[in-house]
Amino acid sequence: MDLEESRRRVSEARVGRLATLASDGRPHLVPCCFALVGTTIYTAVDAKPKATTSLRRIENIRSDDRVTLLVDHYDEDWTSLWWVRVDGRARIVDGDPEQEREKAIGALVGKYPQYRQVAIPGPVVAIEPESWQSWSSRPSGRPGRRAIP
Amino acid sequence: MDLEESRRRVSEARVGRLATLASDGRPHLVPCCFALVGTTIYTAVDAKPKATTSLRRIENIRSDDRVTLLVDHYDEDWTSLWWVRVDGRARIVDGDPEQEREKAIGALVGKYPQYRQVAIPGPVVAIEPESWQSWSSRPSGRPGRRAIP
Repeated sequence: MDLEESRRRVSEARVGRLATLASDGRPHLVPCCFALVGTTIYTAVDAKPKATTSLRRIENIRSDDRVTLLVDHYDEDWTSLWWVRVDGRARIVDGDPEQEREKAIGALVGKYPQYRQVAIPGPVVAIEPESWQSWSSRPSGRPGRRAIP
Repeated sequence: MDLEESRRRVSEARVGRLATLASDGRPHLVPCCFALVGTTIYTAVDAKPKATTSLRRIENIRSDDRVTLLVDHYDEDWTSLWWVRVDGRARIVDGDPEQEREKAIGALVGKYPQYRQVAIPGPVVAIEPESWQSWSSRPSGRPGRRAIP
């Protein structure tokens, strides 16, 4: 799977899993919706009901910006499995001189009609990828690792 | 969602996402098949084609045993979302005085008929949960955190 194909699959995926690092260094993991805009991945803390620990991902990013987003396809046919993993740095979009938050929310609403009913009162997170890795169980989609061009 | 329900959903899930810690402290993330046996979660490095970094999860566990397994359900109906997250300690099953590897592989083959065709030549990993957390977008499945009883 080449970088273009990896990006296409990430862009089209409806859900990913985001790993951040807790202050004690433990991994923290949540499913998340996101949108790829250019080379940046945006995800937001929306108004879906949250656990008390819901903003852990935001605290984590503020203390350590290293994150990983995994997009994968599971299928009972194990010749059809694949994943794309993005390692990157995350930042909270605030201040917003470039109206980046507005653009990110526009991309999220464009991808997910659900956001027309579910508000995004919380922080927007921008992930800047540092490397893309991918794997596919199909021979035509050999494992690959690519640094960002 | 109570602990019993969380365990049921994890037990029945066909795929989870496993976060480990790389030697530099970065999170590492892979989708994985697994089986819950009693209170222990087993996953194995099987014969599906692997990326060159495929055994990273094993190296990671050997250097830091803190892991997180996330099981979640995504649905375009955002009132039907849920996840269960297990934080725990992982260990590589070897030596095997209790024939633990054999039992784990038996559980994996029992859950996944695919393993009758796909060998498990690699390490088996046992995850001992330290805490279970869950979240559901349905009001009846309020967020909850439970330490292991």
